[in-house]
Amino acid sequence: MPRYRLLIEYDGTPFVGWQSQTNRRSVQGDLSEALSKLTGEQIDVHGAGRTDAGVHAIGQVAHVTLTKTYPDYVIRDALNFHVRPAPIAVRDVVEVPETFDARFSAIRRHYLYRISNRRAPSALQANRVWWIAKPLDIEAMQQAADVLVGHHDFTTFRSTACQAKSPMKTVDTFTVTTAPDDEIHIIATARSFMHNQVRSMVGSLKFVGDGKWGRADLHAALQARDRVQCGVVAPACGLYLVKVEY
Amino acid sequence: MPRYRLLIEYDGTPFVGWQSQTNRRSVQGDLSEALSKLTGEQIDVHGAGRTDAGVHAIGQVAHVTLTKTYPDYVIRDALNFHVRPAPIAVRDVVEVPETFDARFSAIRRHYLYRISNRRAPSALQANRVWWIAKPLDIEAMQQAADVLVGHHDFTTFRSTACQAKSPMKTVDTFTVTTAPDDEIHIIATARSFMHNQVRSMVGSLKFVGDGKWGRADLHAALQARDRVQCGVVAPACGLYLVKVEY
Repeated sequence: MPRYRLLIEYDGTPFVGWQSQTNRRSVQGDLSEALSKLTGEQIDVHGAGRTDAGVHAIGQVAHVTLTKTYPDYVIRDALNFHVRPAPIAVRDVVEVPETFDARFSAIRRHYLYRISNRRAPSALQANRVWWIAKPLDIEAMQQAADVLVGHHDFTTFRSTACQAKSPMKTVDTFTVTTAPDDEIHIIATARSFMHNQVRSMVGSLKFVGDGKWGRADLHAALQARDRVQCGVVAPACGLYLVKVEY
Repeated sequence: MPRYRLLIEYDGTPFVGWQSQTNRRSVQGDLSEALSKLTGEQIDVHGAGRTDAGVHAIGQVAHVTLTKTYPDYVIRDALNFHVRPAPIAVRDVVEVPETFDARFSAIRRHYLYRISNRRAPSALQANRVWWIAKPLDIEAMQQAADVLVGHHDFTTFRSTACQAKSPMKTVDTFTVTTAPDDEIHIIATARSFMHNQVRSMVGSLKFVGDGKWGRADLHAALQARDRVQCGVVAPACGLYLVKVEY
């Protein structure tokens, strides 16, 4: 049966997250409903990453298996039409082999975390950034971030609700850059992340920016393999699933 | 009496525009109310530009005259506190001489117009861009834009409601560039613009991007000095007052 890969953007603000939950609004649920309006069938939408409530996506990927073939653009345009007014956009649709699985075929996930670091809150980026009024020491953050790069036990940086069997993960990139309008951008890439991992890493790195922690404290938190040693968990609204590589 | 210059950002979506209107929500009105919570007095807020309903600002400027002196940061922080939850942020406050007038001292206004030119609507930039699904000929737009640069009678490109005495204006810059995520950015600068002028210029330039008009048609529209010869008026949601120079 024909399988399609969808490239999806969404504003996570009004959703309980990617994953469907009974009687609550999810990105997966809204897309599935839009798809049933096109096909007349109940179709599951399989995403690459289960983003949490409030987390955004610029490049979430999902696959769907239909019983009938449609031109790619018909699926894209029909989904964009039927999904309105939900803040979800299907940027691209392409037919793929039946072996393609949005979640299990992925070899790397890219996340962006945006901090707005200025005295005034952001009027135009509300719900799009983590607003931190106190100036952060960006250089200290840059110098400490690589402590979390590599193959480690990330128990400290995952939600206690995380269901992954092993806490071992390999983080490929964790970098801090400045951006216009007093923003700080943190890029995190890995084959996969555990539940709340990026937000836990960002929140802990913020302690370094605050001067509350040094590089050694971040390292000690990692070594502790103890959730209690984590810094704050950064709010969902600053996080974006930017790209999934296959 | 002490006078202060405010640098202001806002999301124009929920407002009838900058200017106060009886029983309707304006940026000027919300700021004036926030200021009265700080000072206990009714204070007028004088803006550099009267942006329309739905138009955003990154760098609107206003001045206020108070009866009492406050440290600059106290005014900034108090306004940001009292103006909540309105999507308005006071980025900066500085005391200025009493001769400073936000509107009349300005020597140049910078506007940005953002077009999202892709098949899928934008989930994350809804109300922040003009979404045009059909691909525009950006090169043609770039080559035609300078027709509107210089000292001209802009009757074609101003609202019939415009109250300026003369239709003569000097446009310093009108340029088209590409930006990430399939955006087209149009920058317009002038000492001052008339009512709806930037949106009328952008909407007419869009006709060039559509292939409906050539460079000569844009020139003919300018020469006609006739409002009826204007292209569409671009929607407010794509327009930003970026900067006011003094």
